[in-house]
Amino acid sequence: HPSFDLAQHPHRRYNPLNGEWLLVSPHRALRPWQGQQEAPDTETRPAHDPTCYLCPGNVRANGAPNPDYTGTFVFDNDFAALRDDVPAGQLNQGGLLRAESESGVGRVICFSPRHDLTLPEMSPAAIRGVVDVWTDEYRTLGARPDIGYVQIFENKGAVMGCSNPHPHGQIWAQRTVPGEPAKESVQQLAYYQEHGRTLLTDYLAIELAEKTRLVLENEHWVALVPFWAGWPFETLLLPRRAVSDLTQLNEAEKDAFADALRRLTIHYDNLFQTSFPYSAGLHQQPTDGQAHPEWHLHMHFFPPLLRSATVRKFMVGYELLANAQRDITPEWAAERLRSQSEVHYKAVSV
Amino acid sequence: HPSFDLAQHPHRRYNPLNGEWLLVSPHRALRPWQGQQEAPDTETRPAHDPTCYLCPGNVRANGAPNPDYTGTFVFDNDFAALRDDVPAGQLNQGGLLRAESESGVGRVICFSPRHDLTLPEMSPAAIRGVVDVWTDEYRTLGARPDIGYVQIFENKGAVMGCSNPHPHGQIWAQRTVPGEPAKESVQQLAYYQEHGRTLLTDYLAIELAEKTRLVLENEHWVALVPFWAGWPFETLLLPRRAVSDLTQLNEAEKDAFADALRRLTIHYDNLFQTSFPYSAGLHQQPTDGQAHPEWHLHMHFFPPLLRSATVRKFMVGYELLANAQRDITPEWAAERLRSQSEVHYKAVSV
Ligand SMILES: O=P(O)(O)O[C@H]1O[C@H](CO)[C@@H](O)[C@H](O)[C@H]1O
Ligand SMILES: O=P(O)(O)O[C@H]1O[C@H](CO)[C@@H](O)[C@H](O)[C@H]1O
Repeated sequence: HPSFDLAQHPHRRYNPLNGEWLLVSPHRALRPWQGQQEAPDTETRPAHDPTCYLCPGNVRANGAPNPDYTGTFVFDNDFAALRDDVPAGQLNQGGLLRAESESGVGRVICFSPRHDLTLPEMSPAAIRGVVDVWTDEYRTLGARPDIGYVQIFENKGAVMGCSNPHPHGQIWAQRTVPGEPAKESVQQLAYYQEHGRTLLTDYLAIELAEKTRLVLENEHWVALVPFWAGWPFETLLLPRRAVSDLTQLNEAEKDAFADALRRLTIHYDNLFQTSFPYSAGLHQQPTDGQAHPEWHLHMHFFPPLLRSATVRKFMVGYELLANAQRDITPEWAAERLRSQSEVHYKAVSV
Repeated sequence: HPSFDLAQHPHRRYNPLNGEWLLVSPHRALRPWQGQQEAPDTETRPAHDPTCYLCPGNVRANGAPNPDYTGTFVFDNDFAALRDDVPAGQLNQGGLLRAESESGVGRVICFSPRHDLTLPEMSPAAIRGVVDVWTDEYRTLGARPDIGYVQIFENKGAVMGCSNPHPHGQIWAQRTVPGEPAKESVQQLAYYQEHGRTLLTDYLAIELAEKTRLVLENEHWVALVPFWAGWPFETLLLPRRAVSDLTQLNEAEKDAFADALRRLTIHYDNLFQTSFPYSAGLHQQPTDGQAHPEWHLHMHFFPPLLRSATVRKFMVGYELLANAQRDITPEWAAERLRSQSEVHYKAVSV
């Protein structure tokens, strides 16, 4: 009888950050694929596109022209899912029909005036500019008494619902703490109360010792494929020091964050020699005016590609009805990501 | 000051079945869409396709020919995510790296020998055949001491990761109870212990009185857009009588299930005059050998289309990092679905 082997046998893994399990089916990696093919993004774009509502100088849906910005540019989303003029109110019918009004703000952040760039193609200084805007926005929005949580994220690529290739991200900030960070709060608090250290401090120590799931590191940040990754090439980017949000990072840590962001997204692009689509976002402490020493700032990357620039993982039937499932192991994914060059494939002269 | 209005103002709704919240942004329905366009399925298919590994008589990946089946046909998935020859074993490093081996079975169910049909185009008798296979499979797999949960589902359409248009569904049956049904177990048990009736019995009574979220009904089943629907045209199909699994349905209830399935999928296809993609599946009591009177059998439909055959909802950045979000209200979606004809658009002579 062979003994249980994570690299070979179907198994479940536990995500201590949100308390959920996922199914891993390592043996299934080689099944044939006759399904949908994604169209990789091969278009060459101009540095400025007169039809793009995010480029400097162009007019947006609200009729106002964008400034001639040279670094980042932030504005209120013209079609925000959250608004701040919502009357308070709630409904509760027997605990079965429950609703309550929700208010908040939607912001859009252009990462660069250049229509043709993405994070991995930007300079370390320009990416540091993005980190600074994220920090300022988190601080300003979080200081509002009506904002309890600030979600910063980026949808990259048409396959991830992004409707404009101009490099940009979003912020949805709202009164209450949404589901995922609420679960992470519960899990991190329980761990902190028991051990007196953040969950991610202890988890990081294990990963730095084992090394098999590391992707890259610098003096202050580490990128790894978490043991419980659901998406094929999912990663977690986290600071070595347990800080609860961006405003607690010092200058060196912010530079190092920009460096790690740049290198990680280069590894991604190089993996399948394509502009790698993903949804990514920061999880930080709620902005409820209380200290949350249990909260360890981190950034999740959820990229859908599985085998090539055209074959993705679908989170569908079993995944929606039962739980997440993956076909390649996190260890195998980490090894592939780690071994990529740190020079962007487009910058390699042919 | 206007008062809080579910049809107008952003709000959160609670899903009592799984205990999670979602964000509803009714005002956002009309934002412009410049993103990815789905390719609707407009291909005309032959009744038998010699290259399809699911058609009668053709050879599958394992080298064996399919029988010349005339109704349904069930077999073990040649590339199953679950297997039953897995050595037991587990790993637990400080509660942070936790894994355990998982065993189970993957089955594929062809709904019809006809390559060119889908559920809404099949006869009531043929759909009743599908209901009978689901029931038999649930009974047989569930009787195995090593199977604690049986997940029956269908991925329909390339956009939902389906790799073969031949009408078929799947079963993934496993040792443990996966995440979603485990959450529904907790929620349904708590409700049953407090009220002595199933959660869905009381919920259904509210919906039958309010009528605004109903899609269709027959003597034994009701289809509705749940108050907490996450996907744009998500529905819940449930029996009026509180049964815990398919084996507890009587003959009339099984006929009525087939009737409701047929009519609901016709409403879906007629909405955008397209073969409506979705992931759908049954939630039933765990097969752990215990009685679960708190469990009320039901079927979820999670369809991605939002505004037309080519514009879908993406569950991406905010949804993955925070919680589900929708732009149209469940009440509006129910009204649109309800008002569809019960004659399939392809069967209407022009
Ligand atoms: O088994 P299939 O149809 O090849 O695969 C499809 O359904 C599975 C179960 O929902 C998913 O894990 C796959 O990502 C999807 O492509
Ligand atoms: O706001 P956008 O970029 O138009 O929209 C995109 O991101 C949102 C937040 O994740 C999603 O709700 C939308 O489904 C997606 O298309």
